Amino acid sequence: MPRYKITLEYDGTPFCGWQRQKDALSVQEVLEKALFVLEKSPVSTFASGRTDAGVHARGQVVHFDLKKNYDLYKLRESLNALMRPNPISVLQIEEVSDDFHARFDARERTYLYRILNRPAPSVLDALRVWHFPSPLDVEAMQQAANLLIGRHDFSTFRAAGCQAKSPIKTMNSITLQKEGDMINITLKARSFIHHQVRNIAGTLILVGSHKWSVEDFKTAFEAKDRRKGGVTAPACGLFFISVHYPKKD
Amino acid sequence: MPRYKITLEYDGTPFCGWQRQKDALSVQEVLEKALFVLEKSPVSTFASGRTDAGVHARGQVVHFDLKKNYDLYKLRESLNALMRPNPISVLQIEEVSDDFHARFDARERTYLYRILNRPAPSVLDALRVWHFPSPLDVEAMQQAANLLIGRHDFSTFRAAGCQAKSPIKTMNSITLQKEGDMINITLKARSFIHHQVRNIAGTLILVGSHKWSVEDFKTAFEAKDRRKGGVTAPACGLFFISVHYPKKD
Repeated sequence: MPRYKITLEYDGTPFCGWQRQKDALSVQEVLEKALFVLEKSPVSTFASGRTDAGVHARGQVVHFDLKKNYDLYKLRESLNALMRPNPISVLQIEEVSDDFHARFDARERTYLYRILNRPAPSVLDALRVWHFPSPLDVEAMQQAANLLIGRHDFSTFRAAGCQAKSPIKTMNSITLQKEGDMINITLKARSFIHHQVRNIAGTLILVGSHKWSVEDFKTAFEAKDRRKGGVTAPACGLFFISVHYPKKD
Repeated sequence: MPRYKITLEYDGTPFCGWQRQKDALSVQEVLEKALFVLEKSPVSTFASGRTDAGVHARGQVVHFDLKKNYDLYKLRESLNALMRPNPISVLQIEEVSDDFHARFDARERTYLYRILNRPAPSVLDALRVWHFPSPLDVEAMQQAANLLIGRHDFSTFRAAGCQAKSPIKTMNSITLQKEGDMINITLKARSFIHHQVRNIAGTLILVGSHKWSVEDFKTAFEAKDRRKGGVTAPACGLFFISVHYPKKD
C-alpha cells in the first residue's frame, strides 16, 4: 500500500477544526470522504497537527495509505474536484516511504498570527485577521516575545483542556513584522501546546497597548499560570503555515 | 457646507461596481444611503475613479459635502455602522477645502493586479486573485510590461464601451513582483482607460506562458487594435490601491 503525503490549504471558517467530530464538519471528514470515493473503502488520514475551529492552513501536512498507485497529478485534481465546494485545496502531493509519519516526523512547525491594527473594520481581510483598533507598539511586543525564545514552561499560555504531556516546549523563534496596518507574528517550534499561539498573541496585545510593561509580561510568563496571561486571541487570525521534515538520504 | 474626503476599502464581489445603477447594488448607493440617514437629505458623492463589478478597493477616494461639521472620528464610526453588513469600510476621513475634487485633482492612481500562479485552486484568496494554473515567466512579462511605460496609444487594451476622450495615456510604472505563488502587478498612471489594467494583465499572460514573444506583445500593442490583444483578465484579481493628490500649501 503506497503512502502519500499531501500539503493542504484551507479556510478554517466553516469547519470545527482539522479533527473529525460527531456533530460538526471537520477538514478531516471532507478529505476522508473524498478518499472514500476514490478507494471505495475507508481511508484514515493523519495530520501533522490539529487545528482548532476557525483556524486556517496554508501548509497543513497529512499522510494516508491507498490501495493502489495513483498518478500524482490526477490524484490531486480528483481530490480537489471531490472536495469542492468546501474551501480545502490540495497544493502538493507526493509518494513517501511507508515509515513517514506527518505528526511524529515533524521537526519544526510554523504558525502565523495576523493582527490588523487600524481603527476601521476589516473588509477585504475579514475572517483572516484579528482586528485590533487601538495603536500597538510592535517594538515592545517584540521585546516581550523575545523572552519566550528557548526551552520554557509555557503553562501561562496553555489551554485548560490541553492534552499535551508537558507544558515545556522549545520556541525556536518569534518574529513580529509590520506591513502597513498589518502586524504579522511568525512563530516556529517543534511543537506547540493547545492555544499556545493564540494565548501568546492575546498577551502580547497587553504589552503592545501599554497596559503591561515587558516586565509585567515576564512576571506573567514566569508565573506558569494561565490565569496570569491575557485573552485567547480569535481563531480567525491564526494560520498554520508549514511543517519541516528532516531530509531523507 | 464643509467638504469631506474619505478613503474607502471595499470587497467588490457583491457590487455592480462603484457607480449607481438602476437594478443592481453599487458601492455609491450604499454610501449615499448611509449619508442620507445622517443628513436626512440626499448627498451626492464623487469618486476618484469608477471601479467595475467585482473589482476591489484598498484606497478608493471619494468626496462629498455635508450640511454641518461632524466630528471626524464619529463620522467614520457612524458611516461604518450604517453601511454594515455591506463589505465597505471607511478607513480615513478628513475635511478638505471646498475646491477639492476627488476625480479632477488626482495626480496618480495605483492599481494592483494579483495572479495566483500554481496548479491547485485558491481557497484562502478565492475571489481576491486570478488563479492561473500553468507556470508563468515573470521576467518575460516584466520585459513586455516595460514597453508600456511612457505616453502611448493604449487602444489595444481599451474596452469597447470606453468613454474616455482619447486612448492616449501615460503609464508611469508597471512592476511585477513574485511572492511565493503570487504575482503582483502594480501599475501607476495619472488615469486609466476602461479595462486597461485587466486587458494588460490578460495580454501579459500570453507572454508569461510563452505563447507570445515579447516582440509579439510589441506588435499587438503597436497595432492599436483591441482585437490584437489578449483576454480581459477577471475582475476579482484587480485592486484599486491608492490615489495621489498634490500637496496644498
